[in-house]
Amino acid sequence: MDQARYDKGMKRLQQMNNMSTIGSRLMEISPELNRYIKEFAFGDVHSREGLSPRDHELVIISGLCALGFAAEEMRSHINMGLNAGLTRQEILETFIQLAVYAGFPAAVNATFIAKEIFDARDAKGIKN
Amino acid sequence: MDQARYDKGMKRLQQMNNMSTIGSRLMEISPELNRYIKEFAFGDVHSREGLSPRDHELVIISGLCALGFAAEEMRSHINMGLNAGLTRQEILETFIQLAVYAGFPAAVNATFIAKEIFDARDAKGIKN
Amino acid sequence: MDQARYDKGMKRLQQMNNMSTIGSRLMEISPELNRYIKEFAFGDVHSREGLSPRDHELVIISGLCALGFAAEEMRSHINMGLNAGLTRQEILETFIQLAVYAGFPAAVNATFIAKEIFDARDAKGIKN
Amino acid sequence: MDQARYDKGMKRLQQMNNMSTIGSRLMEISPELNRYIKEFAFGDVHSREGLSPRDHELVIISGLCALGFAAEEMRSHINMGLNAGLTRQEILETFIQLAVYAGFPAAVNATFIAKEIFDARDAKGIKN
Amino acid sequence: MDQARYDKGMKRLQQMNNMSTIGSRLMEISPELNRYIKEFAFGDVHSREGLSPRDHELVIISGLCALGFAAEEMRSHINMGLNAGLTRQEILETFIQLAVYAGFPAAVNATFIAKEIFDARDAKGIKN
Amino acid sequence: MDQARYDKGMKRLQQMNNMSTIGSRLMEISPELNRYIKEFAFGDVHSREGLSPRDHELVIISGLCALGFAAEEMRSHINMGLNAGLTRQEILETFIQLAVYAGFPAAVNATFIAKEIFDARDAKGIKN
Repeated sequence: MDQARYDKGMKRLQQMNNMSTIGSRLMEISPELNRYIKEFAFGDVHSREGLSPRDHELVIISGLCALGFAAEEMRSHINMGLNAGLTRQEILETFIQLAVYAGFPAAVNATFIAKEIFDARDAKGIKN
Repeated sequence: MDQARYDKGMKRLQQMNNMSTIGSRLMEISPELNRYIKEFAFGDVHSREGLSPRDHELVIISGLCALGFAAEEMRSHINMGLNAGLTRQEILETFIQLAVYAGFPAAVNATFIAKEIFDARDAKGIKN
Repeated sequence: MDQARYDKGMKRLQQMNNMSTIGSRLMEISPELNRYIKEFAFGDVHSREGLSPRDHELVIISGLCALGFAAEEMRSHINMGLNAGLTRQEILETFIQLAVYAGFPAAVNATFIAKEIFDARDAKGIKN
Repeated sequence: MDQARYDKGMKRLQQMNNMSTIGSRLMEISPELNRYIKEFAFGDVHSREGLSPRDHELVIISGLCALGFAAEEMRSHINMGLNAGLTRQEILETFIQLAVYAGFPAAVNATFIAKEIFDARDAKGIKN
Repeated sequence: MDQARYDKGMKRLQQMNNMSTIGSRLMEISPELNRYIKEFAFGDVHSREGLSPRDHELVIISGLCALGFAAEEMRSHINMGLNAGLTRQEILETFIQLAVYAGFPAAVNATFIAKEIFDARDAKGIKN
Repeated sequence: MDQARYDKGMKRLQQMNNMSTIGSRLMEISPELNRYIKEFAFGDVHSREGLSPRDHELVIISGLCALGFAAEEMRSHINMGLNAGLTRQEILETFIQLAVYAGFPAAVNATFIAKEIFDARDAKGIKN
C-alpha cells in the first residue's frame, strides 16, 4: 500500500464531503479495489489541479450519465458535485444537454437519481 | 420546419464557431435529422442559459468520451469547446478524469482525437 | 415553451394510450426535460408519419433492448407497442432476434420486463 | 457441424440477397464463428416466422444503431433490409426515431452508413 | 426443437452446478429464448473444449463486467465460475483488472454482486 | 511522478513484450495519461500476482471485446496475450464464447482484429 497517496485520496474525499458508503462496503469484500479508488481515483486523479473540484464533478457526472448503468456512483457524485459548488439547476441542465448525445433514457435515469439526492439533502436540511 | 428554432440553432452554431461538416453532409442524406440537430440540439438545448457555453461543451465532451463510439461528434465538440473557452489542458484533464470512470481505452481514444484537432488548429494558426 | 408542439406530443401519447408515470414524475424535478420529451420526442419525432405507430414502437423497443440499461422506458414502450398493434409474440420474437446482436443478457432482461408488463395487463383485463 | 441448420441459414441469407463479405472473411480466420452465424443466427433465429423478414431487419438495424460500434453489420443489414422491403425512407426514419433513445451520434453514424449503402446500390443500378 | 443439443446444454449446466433460476423463469414467458440458451449458449458454445470450463467462466464474467447491465447473469456465472474452479480471489482480481479497461463503476458493481454470491454460498456452507 | 511504480509498469510491459505504440504516441499529447497507464494500469494492477499474466490478458481481451469500441487496445492485448501464453485458438474461442453475451458484432469485430494481429506476427516470423 502507498500510504501517502492513500491519505491524499482520503483527504480529497473529505474535502468533497463524500457521503457515499461505497468505500466502507468495498473494504469488506475487496480492500484492494477500495485502495485503488483512494490512491489512484482520488489521490492521483481527482486531486489534479488542472480542473477545479466543481469541474471534476461536472465531468464525472456527465460521463456516468452516458454510461447509463452506474447508479451508485451517480448518487455519490451528485452529492460531491453539489458540495463542490455545482447548483442543482446546473446538474439538471447537464442531463438535459446529455439527452441529446446519450439519449433521453440515460438523461431520465440520471434525473431521477438527482431527485432522490435532492430530497435526501432536503431531509437533512442541506441548503444546496 | 420551425424556422425560428432552426435559425436559433444556426446562430448558436455560428457563435460556437462550428467547423464541422456533419450538418452539410447530413443535409444530402437526411435533411430531417439535420433539421432536428439545428432546431432541437442547438436551438432548444445548447442555447439554454443554465450552463455557460464552455460548460455545455465540457458536459458534451465528457458524455461523448464515455460513449466511446462517437469520433465524429468528438472532433466537432473539441473544436467548439476550445472556441468556447475550454483550454487544451482542460480537455486533456477531462479525459484523464474519465479514464477512472469509463476506462482507459475511452480516455485514450478521446485523447488521440484531441491531438488530431490540436494539430489541425496549429496548422491553421489558431492560437488555442 | 412551444404550446403547439407540446400539445401535439401530448396528443400522440394519448393516441398511444401511454400508461407511464415517467412524465408526471419528471414534471416535479425537471419540467424542462419533461417538456422536451413532449415537444421533441413525441411532438416532433414519434408523430412522424414515415413509420407507422406500430413500427415506431418496434424500433424503440429494439433500441432500448440493445442499450441494456433503460428498464423504465422499456416498460413504457412495451405497453405502447402493444397498444399500437404489436402482438405479445412479436415483442418476444424481437428480443430473441436481438439476442444475436446485443447478446443474451440484453434479451433476457428485456424478456423479463415483457413478462412484468404482460402480467400487469392481464391483471387489468387488457386482452393483448 | 449441423448441416441441416447450416443449409437453412445459407438459404435464408440467399433469400435476403446477402451481399456482405463478413462470412467469407470469417471463414479464413474463425470458421467456427462463421458456422454459428449460419446455423444459429440465420438458420435458427432469422428464419423464425413470428416476424416478417422485413421486421427482422427493422429490429436488427435498430439494435445495431443503439449499439453504436457495429458498422460492418450495419452495412450488411441495411442492404438486407432494403432487399426485404424496407424503404430507404423507413431506414432514415428509424435512425431519426433512435436519435431520441440512443442519442444523436448513434443516429448520425447510422445515417452516414445508410448513405454509403444507398450510393453503392445506386452505382449498381439497384432501384430501392 | 433440437433434443440432442438441448440435452447437451442441460448436461453442461448440470456439470457447472448451475443454480440460477433464469431458465425456469424464462420457460414461462419465452420458452424459445430458453431453448436457445440451452441449445446454443450451453449446448454448442459453452461445451466447446478449446477453453477449460474455468476459462469459459473467466471470459464470461469479464465480458459481463464490461457490459455493466447484466446483474442477473453475473450472479449466475460467478456461481458457475466458482463451481468450475475459479477462486473467490481470482474473481475479485478480475474486477480489479477490469477497473482499468471498463472503469471503476463497472468493477465496483461486479464486486458487490460477488459479495452477494460469496455470502449466499457461505450461508449454504459451500466452501469456495 | 512516482518513479518506482512507473519503472514497475515499464518492466511489466517489457515482460509482456509489449509492441504497441500507444504509449509513445500518448507521450506527445498527454504525458500524464501515459504516466498513469505505466504507474497504475501496469505498475499497480497488471503486475498483481493473484492472476497469472496469461489470465490478466484473457480477462482484458474479454472486457475489450464486450466494450466494442477499443480496437487499438485490442490489438495491443492480443499481442501481449499471445506473448503471455494464450494460444491463437484460445483467443478465437474467447470471442466465440462472447458472441453469446456481448452479441455477434462484438465477437466478429474482435475476430477480425485477431486476424490482423496473427497475420502481422506471421509476417514477422513469430511462431505463436
